[in-house]
Amino acid sequence: MDKKAPAVIAFVGRSNSGKTTLIEKLLPEMTRRGYRVGTLKHTHHDIDLGDQKKDSNRHKNAGAAMVMVASPSVVSMVKSWRNPPLMDLLQQFTGMDLVIVEGYKTERLTKIEVHYSGTHKAPLNLPENEIVAVVSDQPDPRNLRQFGLDDINTLTEFIETRFLNSNTKSQIYKEEEE
Amino acid sequence: MDKKAPAVIAFVGRSNSGKTTLIEKLLPEMTRRGYRVGTLKHTHHDIDLGDQKKDSNRHKNAGAAMVMVASPSVVSMVKSWRNPPLMDLLQQFTGMDLVIVEGYKTERLTKIEVHYSGTHKAPLNLPENEIVAVVSDQPDPRNLRQFGLDDINTLTEFIETRFLNSNTKSQIYKEEEE
Repeated sequence: MDKKAPAVIAFVGRSNSGKTTLIEKLLPEMTRRGYRVGTLKHTHHDIDLGDQKKDSNRHKNAGAAMVMVASPSVVSMVKSWRNPPLMDLLQQFTGMDLVIVEGYKTERLTKIEVHYSGTHKAPLNLPENEIVAVVSDQPDPRNLRQFGLDDINTLTEFIETRFLNSNTKSQIYKEEEE
Repeated sequence: MDKKAPAVIAFVGRSNSGKTTLIEKLLPEMTRRGYRVGTLKHTHHDIDLGDQKKDSNRHKNAGAAMVMVASPSVVSMVKSWRNPPLMDLLQQFTGMDLVIVEGYKTERLTKIEVHYSGTHKAPLNLPENEIVAVVSDQPDPRNLRQFGLDDINTLTEFIETRFLNSNTKSQIYKEEEE
């Protein structure tokens, strides 16, 4: 976060004064001049993801590099970002206790492997020290903690004990209250 | 960003091994135990916003407090966030030269007012020192820079000169290259 903060301008006006239309005309002109422009739209209503997508698309199609729509309870964001480093993405997850990543198997993350013999005979060939457990429909030859595909409770307990001990959790909440 | 970083676990496995289904079962159980869980899904294909929405919804509906989908060129994010402070939202716009905000008229931001006499006789009654310009279809009595609804070029130049002088821009690019 040591990058220069962007300039911020708010376009205000009564409803149907043409704010969105004006912004749609400004964006291509700003982009043509080489600026990376983000837009932040505020809505008073709690909108579903479909509506947010519609609002996002209008700004995005006009050339915004990043579009954020904030409703009273949900914030949605779409950003043009070429090959973002995983660590930069993970930094966005402030306020979470846990991030469950799906994919990124070549990254050096702590992994739980999911294997289903119905679609593939062999599991992935990953460095064993990166894997902490296997969830599979059949016994796995490796010396790893094993869970069945429906052992949700025991798997949750394993994750809780290993990654989310009560100490960690209360610490997070304490910091949020400050 | 001084909050505790969340724990991170990657679920990996061959295609159709049941990763998404397993995560969908885990999320309600984690949420029931009081954890705020975010998910990050990686896709190799450049997907349109519609597809990203579908992926997002599957995790969101299962109870994720935050869902991010990252494709090679676009990152989309949906986060449950009750009444987020505007400044926290603006902090997300790293790498942008300019953020165009639509709405938030009661916040202390530098504002450009949009007025169209066809829908409302009078403009908003805002503190004059917060407004730097008016875009309107008719002369405005206030002593402010004025632009017509289609004066996109002159308005862009005004924004560029006032908020985005070449100095600012090159500085941003320099910092990004480091």
